[in-house]
Amino acid sequence: MHTLQVSLGERSYPIHIASGLLDRADLLAPHVKAAQAVVVTNETVAPLYLQRLKNTLEKAGVSVIPVILPDGERFKTWETLNLIFDALLGAHCERSTPLIALGGGVIGDMGGFAAACYQRGMPFIQVPTTLLSLVDSSVGGKTAINHPLGKNMIGAFYQPRLVLADIATLDTLPERELRAGLAEVIKYGLIRDPAFLVWLESNLEKLLARDRESLIYAVHRSCANKAEVVAADERESGERALLNLGHTFGHAIETGMGYGAWLHGEAVAAGTMIASELSRLLGWLTADDVERVRRIFSRAGLPVVAPGLGVARYLELMRHDKKVQDGRLRLVLLRSVGQAVLSDVAREDQIGEAIELMCT
Amino acid sequence: MHTLQVSLGERSYPIHIASGLLDRADLLAPHVKAAQAVVVTNETVAPLYLQRLKNTLEKAGVSVIPVILPDGERFKTWETLNLIFDALLGAHCERSTPLIALGGGVIGDMGGFAAACYQRGMPFIQVPTTLLSLVDSSVGGKTAINHPLGKNMIGAFYQPRLVLADIATLDTLPERELRAGLAEVIKYGLIRDPAFLVWLESNLEKLLARDRESLIYAVHRSCANKAEVVAADERESGERALLNLGHTFGHAIETGMGYGAWLHGEAVAAGTMIASELSRLLGWLTADDVERVRRIFSRAGLPVVAPGLGVARYLELMRHDKKVQDGRLRLVLLRSVGQAVLSDVAREDQIGEAIELMCT
Repeated sequence: MHTLQVSLGERSYPIHIASGLLDRADLLAPHVKAAQAVVVTNETVAPLYLQRLKNTLEKAGVSVIPVILPDGERFKTWETLNLIFDALLGAHCERSTPLIALGGGVIGDMGGFAAACYQRGMPFIQVPTTLLSLVDSSVGGKTAINHPLGKNMIGAFYQPRLVLADIATLDTLPERELRAGLAEVIKYGLIRDPAFLVWLESNLEKLLARDRESLIYAVHRSCANKAEVVAADERESGERALLNLGHTFGHAIETGMGYGAWLHGEAVAAGTMIASELSRLLGWLTADDVERVRRIFSRAGLPVVAPGLGVARYLELMRHDKKVQDGRLRLVLLRSVGQAVLSDVAREDQIGEAIELMCT
Repeated sequence: MHTLQVSLGERSYPIHIASGLLDRADLLAPHVKAAQAVVVTNETVAPLYLQRLKNTLEKAGVSVIPVILPDGERFKTWETLNLIFDALLGAHCERSTPLIALGGGVIGDMGGFAAACYQRGMPFIQVPTTLLSLVDSSVGGKTAINHPLGKNMIGAFYQPRLVLADIATLDTLPERELRAGLAEVIKYGLIRDPAFLVWLESNLEKLLARDRESLIYAVHRSCANKAEVVAADERESGERALLNLGHTFGHAIETGMGYGAWLHGEAVAAGTMIASELSRLLGWLTADDVERVRRIFSRAGLPVVAPGLGVARYLELMRHDKKVQDGRLRLVLLRSVGQAVLSDVAREDQIGEAIELMCT
């Protein structure tokens, strides 16, 4: 088992990474000091893993209150969040009752936000079951729900007490979601870890074939990158913003196409292609660099062209994003392959040109 | 002008207390470093003070986006909170846009919770206009909305950058609300400041007559008490719970009677009478002590008997409160007049007896 520590003072917590962790009562028990715990999951994950987690918790003397939500990004709304609150209040949960999110990014975001808000904060544990949530959303404390006018607009920074990354859960992940998760893995290589990018270029097929040791290595290295960034900048006042490479364009794609039509990782891949093209227009990347980025996403089976929403619609959607300051779009761009920067130097016409070049 | 500092490390902030502060651009400007600011207020307060605050902000070069909510505790809901989010997104507010709550406790709670959640946190400023919010809710960072099953169940600890306590706004406060605010002022005397209780017993009529110097003294001393407690225990793991004297019973009254039928301060006064009676049953207060508590609330025109909801209903409502741990009711009780304790020694039959003795 690998263990990483996210260093955030009194809010520090461990990430355990290995295969079979769902059965490890010894890892959960120190963080569940209560007679009961809430497990928030969804209709897809519950039949696969809820009973196993329940058995493990019961072995530790903890009874489980399950909350099973509908599956999908389009349910990441206040209405669904309220189902969690109704269950918590209906079961007389206390502020000391732990809430465990068992599932992917949507479950982690909603479970975490519910835990942040219920009685102003209850203990929170992440048990991610998708590649995306293993390498990204379960680490770092960002929680949120969507608003009709923008993705992740309503949320909280709220750190978990523990992340239990059981790589074996990837066995049941649909192919499309595995590929979407790889977009965030590749991202770490692009923004700050060029050696990891080289490793990915050599080992992508093994990851797609779900070779367990390769997955553990990729998850561990991704989480290590993320933990470093989050420890340096918990509330995203600086370096942490670099994790959003491709996300401002990607959020516009997700919102513009309707939540759920594009998977988050798919939108991030296409968004990263626009960001790369814009970096080329600014003279930072060569055409060969852009081609290298395209090739790795393409090999991972991810979209490398963006949907044709029209430049005006892209810009309108991007204005709602959280990366606007003093009215200027601040974008994560690539200084080189392996080094991202946050910049507002791109003019609107250049942004528009990059969008047009990368759209179908 | 008096200035208190709430000492919370990097989340420390000043409370300025005086008459006429709504006009002081120099006090607001250092905390509003943006071209625009949102002012959240309600239909009652807007005609009285919104234009003045707007003028002051415009003098500092800040344009104002007003959000005017319906007035009343029954609107402290997700639906009303969403009106704030709609306005913030509609005006393309950024995460650096400050949100200013201008009004009483409900506006402060909702404005603060909206500021905590919008893009995971925007700068927040409190401009309280009721006695209750001046002495209690605007200090300490508790924000929340109600859930049909319990008061303040969904919320966040989120500290303001500044509290501007303009005592002149009390000139327009309805008599009933002034009296309700005094319940929280008296509370500080009862739980930890017996000398202040003696001062209140001598000066209550001056406060009811809105003598400005007396009000400034009472607000200052109340805020000083609260700031001390909050600095020692921001997230209510210990001493801060003592601020909830009468609140567990009071919340049951508020929820049981329907939000808004009883003002918060009225429910706290009646709830404190039950807590005092229970303290007497436990042998901590004498009958004379209970009579002393009754007299000060009664002179302030506050209810000293609780509504007859029935013991079973009280206990059911109290189980939903945040002060339950391991299934036992933890109550703030009085060891003596001027010294509160948090205790779970009271048996359910004793709690029931105290409720019955204090109900109509």
